[in-house]
Amino acid sequence: MAHTNISSLLKTLAQKNVRNYGHDFLQTWDKSLAELEATLLTAEILLAAWRANLSPRVFGSGLAVSWFRDKSTRTRFSFKSAADLLGLSVQDLDEQTSQISHGETTRESANMISFLTDVIGIRDDKYLGFGHTFQKEVAAAVAEGFKDGILPQRPAVLNLQCDRDHPTQSLADLMHLQTYFGGLNQLKGKKLVMSWAYSPSYGKPLSVAQGTIGLMTRFGLNVVLAHPKGYELIPELEKQAHDFAQKSGGSFTITNDMKAAFKDADIVYPKSWASFKAMQRRASLYQRNDQAGIEKLEKAELAENAQHKNWTCTEKLMTTTKNGQALYMHCLPADVTGVSCQLGEVAASVFDRYRAETFTQAGYKPYIIAAMILLTKFGPKTATVLRRALAQREPRTL
Amino acid sequence: MAHTNISSLLKTLAQKNVRNYGHDFLQTWDKSLAELEATLLTAEILLAAWRANLSPRVFGSGLAVSWFRDKSTRTRFSFKSAADLLGLSVQDLDEQTSQISHGETTRESANMISFLTDVIGIRDDKYLGFGHTFQKEVAAAVAEGFKDGILPQRPAVLNLQCDRDHPTQSLADLMHLQTYFGGLNQLKGKKLVMSWAYSPSYGKPLSVAQGTIGLMTRFGLNVVLAHPKGYELIPELEKQAHDFAQKSGGSFTITNDMKAAFKDADIVYPKSWASFKAMQRRASLYQRNDQAGIEKLEKAELAENAQHKNWTCTEKLMTTTKNGQALYMHCLPADVTGVSCQLGEVAASVFDRYRAETFTQAGYKPYIIAAMILLTKFGPKTATVLRRALAQREPRTL
Amino acid sequence: MAHTNISSLLKTLAQKNVRNYGHDFLQTWDKSLAELEATLLTAEILLAAWRANLSPRVFGSGLAVSWFRDKSTRTRFSFKSAADLLGLSVQDLDEQTSQISHGETTRESANMISFLTDVIGIRDDKYLGFGHTFQKEVAAAVAEGFKDGILPQRPAVLNLQCDRDHPTQSLADLMHLQTYFGGLNQLKGKKLVMSWAYSPSYGKPLSVAQGTIGLMTRFGLNVVLAHPKGYELIPELEKQAHDFAQKSGGSFTITNDMKAAFKDADIVYPKSWASFKAMQRRASLYQRNDQAGIEKLEKAELAENAQHKNWTCTEKLMTTTKNGQALYMHCLPADVTGVSCQLGEVAASVFDRYRAETFTQAGYKPYIIAAMILLTKFGPKTATVLRRALAQREPRTL
Repeated sequence: MAHTNISSLLKTLAQKNVRNYGHDFLQTWDKSLAELEATLLTAEILLAAWRANLSPRVFGSGLAVSWFRDKSTRTRFSFKSAADLLGLSVQDLDEQTSQISHGETTRESANMISFLTDVIGIRDDKYLGFGHTFQKEVAAAVAEGFKDGILPQRPAVLNLQCDRDHPTQSLADLMHLQTYFGGLNQLKGKKLVMSWAYSPSYGKPLSVAQGTIGLMTRFGLNVVLAHPKGYELIPELEKQAHDFAQKSGGSFTITNDMKAAFKDADIVYPKSWASFKAMQRRASLYQRNDQAGIEKLEKAELAENAQHKNWTCTEKLMTTTKNGQALYMHCLPADVTGVSCQLGEVAASVFDRYRAETFTQAGYKPYIIAAMILLTKFGPKTATVLRRALAQREPRTL
Repeated sequence: MAHTNISSLLKTLAQKNVRNYGHDFLQTWDKSLAELEATLLTAEILLAAWRANLSPRVFGSGLAVSWFRDKSTRTRFSFKSAADLLGLSVQDLDEQTSQISHGETTRESANMISFLTDVIGIRDDKYLGFGHTFQKEVAAAVAEGFKDGILPQRPAVLNLQCDRDHPTQSLADLMHLQTYFGGLNQLKGKKLVMSWAYSPSYGKPLSVAQGTIGLMTRFGLNVVLAHPKGYELIPELEKQAHDFAQKSGGSFTITNDMKAAFKDADIVYPKSWASFKAMQRRASLYQRNDQAGIEKLEKAELAENAQHKNWTCTEKLMTTTKNGQALYMHCLPADVTGVSCQLGEVAASVFDRYRAETFTQAGYKPYIIAAMILLTKFGPKTATVLRRALAQREPRTL
Repeated sequence: MAHTNISSLLKTLAQKNVRNYGHDFLQTWDKSLAELEATLLTAEILLAAWRANLSPRVFGSGLAVSWFRDKSTRTRFSFKSAADLLGLSVQDLDEQTSQISHGETTRESANMISFLTDVIGIRDDKYLGFGHTFQKEVAAAVAEGFKDGILPQRPAVLNLQCDRDHPTQSLADLMHLQTYFGGLNQLKGKKLVMSWAYSPSYGKPLSVAQGTIGLMTRFGLNVVLAHPKGYELIPELEKQAHDFAQKSGGSFTITNDMKAAFKDADIVYPKSWASFKAMQRRASLYQRNDQAGIEKLEKAELAENAQHKNWTCTEKLMTTTKNGQALYMHCLPADVTGVSCQLGEVAASVFDRYRAETFTQAGYKPYIIAAMILLTKFGPKTATVLRRALAQREPRTL
């Protein structure tokens, strides 16, 4: 039965127009709806294959480089799992220092790590205005290296989180919603609240919130962005969400009232992020390596956060959602009140009730990443290559 | 000839009752004699296969996570070798801080690293009362994750050393004895001395000694535990050794006299460990992060050790063993007098004479770990799966 | 066409006498001309195979250990790429401290990491008189372990850069020259200048320069070594270069005049290295862990370097080369004037004009390393094993 399902999914995948999928996956809004749906479908096939003990190992060798400019355990594991599933071997490239490198250096580094590399996953989310720019520089560098014959193959560049988008997260989230509500079509008209929430920590990136409003508005959801004043997102991305909603028949609204936002919501996503101004200042302080300024900013930012301690996802707030049963989402790890901190983003009992759901949500990420690798590398041949692998490869475990 | 031998070992393996082997390997005393023998047999088959250039690669993909809460090079290499031999790809998870995490955090971490993971090897040996507990928590977390459908497969949890047992070491040691003396049956009645020995270092875990008395007493050896007063092991595990010896027809005695212990011994295992009280205090000091207390304890402990500088394995002492030819064992690295320290666990000439033996002893560990992976993952199907791999896979090197 | 080419290269490879290639690759001058040519040929075959989407995966499992005693990103990636290409899995062994370990410790460590290891790549280039010695110790240790039956296979030891030679670099350089000029024969009589160049950094190893004069003089080039007084290389290796040049029909001269050296050169290789005396003092200071002495030496050395700021590869200097078109080479990363430093080894416009060439040069290294692995492991069977892999293995990507 698993096999029948896989076969039918492969047929649907073959019909999606992914001719212009491109060699990189940097932002969901760079992709067409068909390309996003193909990504979800491919991830679904890979998950079904794993469950059916089939191996989609399309690579016999080749490197997958994880280029992390920030600490990470979970993303590292997701990327490693995805690479291993397809037959690629991960090589880490950790930058000890938080230096923001540019131009020449990036071009050289990108080529030096790519001679036998099929994919480069980059996480660079700390500095507003830099992460996405850096990822584009790396993509341009390997594109040029390939064009000049220096690289025998064009490595795909994947965004594992930048200052603008977090596509592996938002697509895993969408896959979760699709599964939970029974299909993408079932999401139309659903109210999803992406809400800021209090956390006693500092400097969390804006990209999860930005990724959410930039993706969910394209699938007909009624997306509400809620945050205290000062915690706005990149203006251009807010504007884009408006446009997307209009096109998809959904809606996009912004409010500074968490309670109003939660009312009758089908889905709530309460999560902390830094204030916009702090993120802007932070980038320039780090560029100048102004340690005193950084510490001062951190204090000010924590004080600013503490003004909004009532922005927390309580049981009481949850009762105001649709039938008191909105789906609670989080990209994890969450700041859970009384567990990981004194007061945080969410009440322990709420988090606990939805634990299996948030864990399941996280579990889609390796398959989304693997899907991005396949589609960036094989484009319209993806369905064919994948069918071949599943048919030819020995089962995953003997 | 190698192939004939492998075939015959596979037949013997198929007859061992491993129906209740379980999904984890935490302590040898959780396993039946048949299960331990099956582990040794599987390791033997894997070693023979490697020597015959056959590949037992039963996995086509999948992660093996090495979760180390203490620095390690050798165990890391053993685990990596075992995983690679079977086709799994290792992902390290190092905890920089010595924090002892609990409950919610462990449950989440364990699931987040396990979406495509087949085995988790954990080393957590520093704090008495915590290592084994932590490993059980991880095992419970992934068992629950699997039951809830969050994890598509149940990762096996392997103990790579905890505060109670060090099963990959003690089984490698037993494999060495089995080979050296010509079979498990030849071990009955042999006198094995697990002796404390002086070392100018601090805080070595008790688990090698505990693992030794908890395993060797089950195979009919006459096990003598020798240590200065104050260097007792966990009382419950000493008691257990008595019970095991009684059942197996061997014996278990404790003495505070190293010389008496060595007399007529067939096997000697002189090795340092921390005093029981120090280990107890240490755990609570680290829990409170009491740095001054830790330093004070370390000084007191080193002074306590220095009271027992005559507990060292000299040539003279070796002459008192059976025919002056007892087998010297060590889990390595040893503190060798005049080589790695001024005065240590063993004389340089003794260590040197048995170097090939201790190196050989260490060399069994990768196969023992690989055997544990196979048996925890495939249980009674292990012999079948392994036979299939050895028959179907191309030779290890072309 | 790719396949025809590969087939013909394999035939040529099969005719090279590599019966005494040996189990290690430590210095190019330990190898015969036929052995070096076989290394280049094997690398060429591997590159052609990669481009033709063929897989030379001759190993089904096994470890490749990267033992780094110095920070490295590029060499790490080259080694990983080479190992992965052949089916080996890399395990890193990083020594945090700069301790120069010896004797017993090395013997034990080498065996402990080698139970299922096929190759050990070592980078140990910081201390004159130590790196090569250490690599020989490791090679001797695993040779002994194999002889004693402790190791089921003999791991090859590869020099990934030591204090004397940098064979993976010099052979990649030679492969570049071979491709650029259309064959090894075309190199005879070409003037190659290995020149010291100014850099505002401290303590760069001598091994690139030594490796260059020790290899290129064997292939009939007219090699000129140019450096300021005090920046001599190991005397024995300068003498050896003279002997090599005499045998090959090329020449070897030393000059303290960069301008004279560049005149009519076909190839220029301007690169910084530390002064000979500084490197000698440095090793003994580190041995004594004399931190104050190290800092003092660093200052003196930088001041000494600054005496020779006119040793830099300018556009003007390039116009004096053969037709103003000498091939510029560098092992990368280079210190580029106005880009990575105020004043460095080379002018930005020169570096920029030859970027594609230096990147291409770097890109040969993974294949050279993989070739060394194959030849040290399979010796005269290399061509056969490689032919089998390319014929039997499924394509690299499906």
